[in-house]
Amino acid sequence: MQEIILPKGYRFSGVHCGLKSAPELLDISLIVSDRPAAAAGVFTPNLVCGAPVQIDRSRVPCTGIRAVVGNSRCANACTGEQGLRDAEEMAALAAKAAGGTAEQGLVMSTGVIGTMLPMDKIRKGIADAAGKLAADESGFINAAQGIMTTDTVEKFVTKKISACAAHPEFRIAGLCKGAAMIAPHLATMLAVIITDAALEPQTAQTLLKNAADISFNCITIDGHTSTSDTLLLLANGAASETPLTGEPLRQFEKTLQELCTELAVKIPADGEGASHLITIDIAGCAAKEDAKIIARKIAEDALVKTAIYGADPNWGRIVSASGTAGIPYDPRKVSLKLNGFDLFKNGEPLPFDKVAVSSSIRDSRNTFILLTIGEGTESVRFWTTDLTAEYVRLNSDYTT
Amino acid sequence: MQEIILPKGYRFSGVHCGLKSAPELLDISLIVSDRPAAAAGVFTPNLVCGAPVQIDRSRVPCTGIRAVVGNSRCANACTGEQGLRDAEEMAALAAKAAGGTAEQGLVMSTGVIGTMLPMDKIRKGIADAAGKLAADESGFINAAQGIMTTDTVEKFVTKKISACAAHPEFRIAGLCKGAAMIAPHLATMLAVIITDAALEPQTAQTLLKNAADISFNCITIDGHTSTSDTLLLLANGAASETPLTGEPLRQFEKTLQELCTELAVKIPADGEGASHLITIDIAGCAAKEDAKIIARKIAEDALVKTAIYGADPNWGRIVSASGTAGIPYDPRKVSLKLNGFDLFKNGEPLPFDKVAVSSSIRDSRNTFILLTIGEGTESVRFWTTDLTAEYVRLNSDYTT
Repeated sequence: MQEIILPKGYRFSGVHCGLKSAPELLDISLIVSDRPAAAAGVFTPNLVCGAPVQIDRSRVPCTGIRAVVGNSRCANACTGEQGLRDAEEMAALAAKAAGGTAEQGLVMSTGVIGTMLPMDKIRKGIADAAGKLAADESGFINAAQGIMTTDTVEKFVTKKISACAAHPEFRIAGLCKGAAMIAPHLATMLAVIITDAALEPQTAQTLLKNAADISFNCITIDGHTSTSDTLLLLANGAASETPLTGEPLRQFEKTLQELCTELAVKIPADGEGASHLITIDIAGCAAKEDAKIIARKIAEDALVKTAIYGADPNWGRIVSASGTAGIPYDPRKVSLKLNGFDLFKNGEPLPFDKVAVSSSIRDSRNTFILLTIGEGTESVRFWTTDLTAEYVRLNSDYTT
Repeated sequence: MQEIILPKGYRFSGVHCGLKSAPELLDISLIVSDRPAAAAGVFTPNLVCGAPVQIDRSRVPCTGIRAVVGNSRCANACTGEQGLRDAEEMAALAAKAAGGTAEQGLVMSTGVIGTMLPMDKIRKGIADAAGKLAADESGFINAAQGIMTTDTVEKFVTKKISACAAHPEFRIAGLCKGAAMIAPHLATMLAVIITDAALEPQTAQTLLKNAADISFNCITIDGHTSTSDTLLLLANGAASETPLTGEPLRQFEKTLQELCTELAVKIPADGEGASHLITIDIAGCAAKEDAKIIARKIAEDALVKTAIYGADPNWGRIVSASGTAGIPYDPRKVSLKLNGFDLFKNGEPLPFDKVAVSSSIRDSRNTFILLTIGEGTESVRFWTTDLTAEYVRLNSDYTT
């Protein structure tokens, strides 16, 4: 069990309001800050974005945020004008539950696209969640559970930055959900990070964007960037009211990046129907962005993903996928390792022990791919899942 | 059974040379032209392209081609310098079997990437195939079978252009293979088209490229553009030696486009493990290329493909996928029909009969999607398959 260290000045709850059919499953979550917090956010680039994304995007970066409400089972996307009114009402109800005014709330919704929120259940749910707010671990875990869809575990990471002469101790905690429709480009499906440090809103926005770029933007499950991807950061200054600058800010940034990476990897590690978490290192590129594009192409390739599922050392699919990424390179300078085995070196295939490579895939939940392009020194790490028959089963009857 | 009309001046064969384990399965094909033919070709844009692609690309467009040899089970890709020597030898052996010189041959290989061709079997196979060449239907069908991998049926289309005052009767015949690693961008996995009309090589190249753009470039099964995509056109002038111009050329172009489209659709119709052929019409775009990019994004989406497999009318996934294509549009002007049912109109969800829509998907092998963007008048038609548990099974143990 991981140690849970919660930032000061926040309270949490998650309750069942009837969105999920099983009464023991939580389906709506509330996070409130006892004082106005600076808020930053990064969101899906999908043109077809949910109503909650439209509301939040119009508000952050800003100061004064008091609450974030999130629900599962309904994404409130493709819901037209009524959807926008509903998202606005949810944010207002959450903010008022925290003692704030309507525009001090933020909102996140996840689930089926194209259905309307049952607002009677949502209103009752927010009122109920407001009555159960707690600053402790169980409140935090309930909040992480209330936004779960096909996730099999709640996902959170907490960290602290120790006190020194320059600043007191700070804490930073993040929670997220997501197991499918995962290929974030600016953020991922519903993640909230809270800290009791103080940050200028624009600084918070920059730090969050940079951290997302090396974490949530480096995972994919099925290549589908959802309508609802939302990553929020609240900084309420409960530990120290002076916005961070200089060395303490750099330390905060590093910790935020670690936290985002650990949180992001939990998503493919719990990918729908997945039997492998695949870590893809792309090295030797002229630019980091090149490495990322090649990594994503491999990570989204159905043929690579099914081969790993079947423990089939069909490595040609990995090299072939890299060649279709649109990044120029010389195929005669490409090398590939799989789970440490050398399979392809400088454009020539190497003899290898098929049984040993196959066993190394079959016997572990983790598969490691290292593809080296001979064009430079930049590298990137990316994470994905295998593609299994169970994934197909789960996704072939989601709404029926 | 479709009527088979073969162009004059060509002979065909397909034999078993031991690449496939079952002795009744053909695995190497030979097509010869009894006279030198003009040849055009379009090939995979994958940087990691097979040795045969490198050889053919260096030769076409040209005149003087006498033979095309193709094999299955081994793609001769990622095979370094030895692979190039092997491909060159194959093309030379084929050309010599037709009575030509080494550089008058073309070559195509499909199968596993990263393994060397067993050249002893290949040499024996080409000699054997040369002895069995025939100008009749059975020779043609054998040639179509010799390049099959996981295809369940041989794929060919033949057409004739009737005689008129301006020209005699011409015939045009095409064969292709492909059931996975299918997302051609310039051509598809191994297709050959032959005609007894005469064409200037540059004209042949232009016609072939244009026809590929609306046919082979509008299909996808798994989004993986292979190392080996090759589409060749031979025009030997056996029906009339004067290269086509004017109205006869326009008629030839139209027939070629129809033939390429019919041939291309046979590939997703036989997609690995597929239970549905999905036809995607994208209308109302500012440019054809915009429509094609949106169509491809939907066609490659695992969530859309699994929903169709499960007959789940989870239409939000289709609209959401379109929003991630990178083509700007106003989501409030988007409408969607599925199998003729109106589901989403001008950005607002419509009430619909879930059972009726689900049945319409379940009860037919064909699913029709029409997505209308309100940005213009350009449209495109695209074809893909659903994603099934059988696809995952087939692709998880391909080399082991």
